[in-house]
Amino acid sequence: MLHIKKRKQGIHRPMVCTPLVGKTTEELQVELQKVVLKKPDLIEWRIDFFSAIGETATVIQTGAWIKAHANGIPILFTRRSIREGGEAIELSEEAVCALYEAMMGAGDIDLIDIELSCPEELKTQLLTSAQKTGKQTILSFHHFSETPSEEAIIAKLKEAELTGGDVGKVAVMPHSVADVLTLIQATQKANELLSIPVVTMSMGEVGALSRLIGGACGSAVTFAIGSDSSAPGQIPIEELNQVLNVIDRSQSKKTTS
Amino acid sequence: MLHIKKRKQGIHRPMVCTPLVGKTTEELQVELQKVVLKKPDLIEWRIDFFSAIGETATVIQTGAWIKAHANGIPILFTRRSIREGGEAIELSEEAVCALYEAMMGAGDIDLIDIELSCPEELKTQLLTSAQKTGKQTILSFHHFSETPSEEAIIAKLKEAELTGGDVGKVAVMPHSVADVLTLIQATQKANELLSIPVVTMSMGEVGALSRLIGGACGSAVTFAIGSDSSAPGQIPIEELNQVLNVIDRSQSKKTTS
Repeated sequence: MLHIKKRKQGIHRPMVCTPLVGKTTEELQVELQKVVLKKPDLIEWRIDFFSAIGETATVIQTGAWIKAHANGIPILFTRRSIREGGEAIELSEEAVCALYEAMMGAGDIDLIDIELSCPEELKTQLLTSAQKTGKQTILSFHHFSETPSEEAIIAKLKEAELTGGDVGKVAVMPHSVADVLTLIQATQKANELLSIPVVTMSMGEVGALSRLIGGACGSAVTFAIGSDSSAPGQIPIEELNQVLNVIDRSQSKKTTS
Repeated sequence: MLHIKKRKQGIHRPMVCTPLVGKTTEELQVELQKVVLKKPDLIEWRIDFFSAIGETATVIQTGAWIKAHANGIPILFTRRSIREGGEAIELSEEAVCALYEAMMGAGDIDLIDIELSCPEELKTQLLTSAQKTGKQTILSFHHFSETPSEEAIIAKLKEAELTGGDVGKVAVMPHSVADVLTLIQATQKANELLSIPVVTMSMGEVGALSRLIGGACGSAVTFAIGSDSSAPGQIPIEELNQVLNVIDRSQSKKTTS
């Protein structure tokens, strides 16, 4: 099922995704209850924060609890690797892949995030399983130290499409407002060029601008804090929604003069 | 006096300017009282909307009333010509220039807007008088049908600097989000290149985005509605301030992860 949809031309309100970063089932339960009240469009469970990541049965059980209490909000299952800004875990890439397979089989998640840098064989296997089990796939790329060129960002999003992902995601680190504008320009162009939805963000304080207007420029999803942050520069969902509401209203006015 | 100051690198909150577009002194009085309550940083008196524009004594008297009731907020005096999106008036360019001179002499205005397209001699005369009377000058350019290229926008802002303006202003019309990004990119680059402050906006519904984040990208002033709109795409000052507050808070957070 396509939870994240392609943006057409013009200004659209992005979906808002809030992360869950609890270390234990109990923490996740508290976090989820806070997050659900804030009505995000997507919830991302960042499994690399979960200390029992090695216990597949516990992960499946916790996933079922999350699904049951998410009030119908689709769940994105994400292991962010340490090389792309995630938490250190003790699982091998093969074990992570097996965990994804188990979770898709259990059926309590709706989307999965696979890093473009994931070993080729595992990536193919996960994409195939996702297709069989009807999960939407996000192929992602994160650069935590800089902002690649506009062309390089577009190329990464194209790679996500060519590799067979349902959605392409790129997150980069800016050192200036110019870097943020590079990411936003790339987003706008990639959204016109590609047939799949794109999700982008410029991280950190300066990059927060991209979380506010990236949606209006072609990014299908923006990440915001429901309870706790999962990446630098995320802002609280209430503040993000204020800005998205102002943008929405600015688009529905009849301008006459 | 330099009311509008040069933006340094990084993300800064722009000054907010609200227009006065009353046709009569009475309308202007009502409008000003509403506007002052909303605490803009600048008030622009759009004299081309004023039906008694031909009666210099009335303009001076009304200007004195505005100054006395503006609660110390600096007043920008602007005649927008019909060729750049203003209202039709019966005064010749020479008469407009004489009116500006009279107003600078009377001393109840703080800044003046001169269009770059104004005849060379009059422009030089006004710039000289403004310098003598200590008024800050904005040299402006408006394109109501399209968005010129990034290079052309930067060139117009450079022209404002080379002509001797204290501030360069460019307002353009977008046909797409890509056009809005062109304006924003040009703003960011021009603000780095030039020694004077730049003020830019992309007009209309789509362009409203630039009114929200243009400040963060180098524009020193953004225009918003206090009581009535003077150009397409302006949004209410309360909504603009909400967004500027969110941007401010996003910049003061310590990001750790």
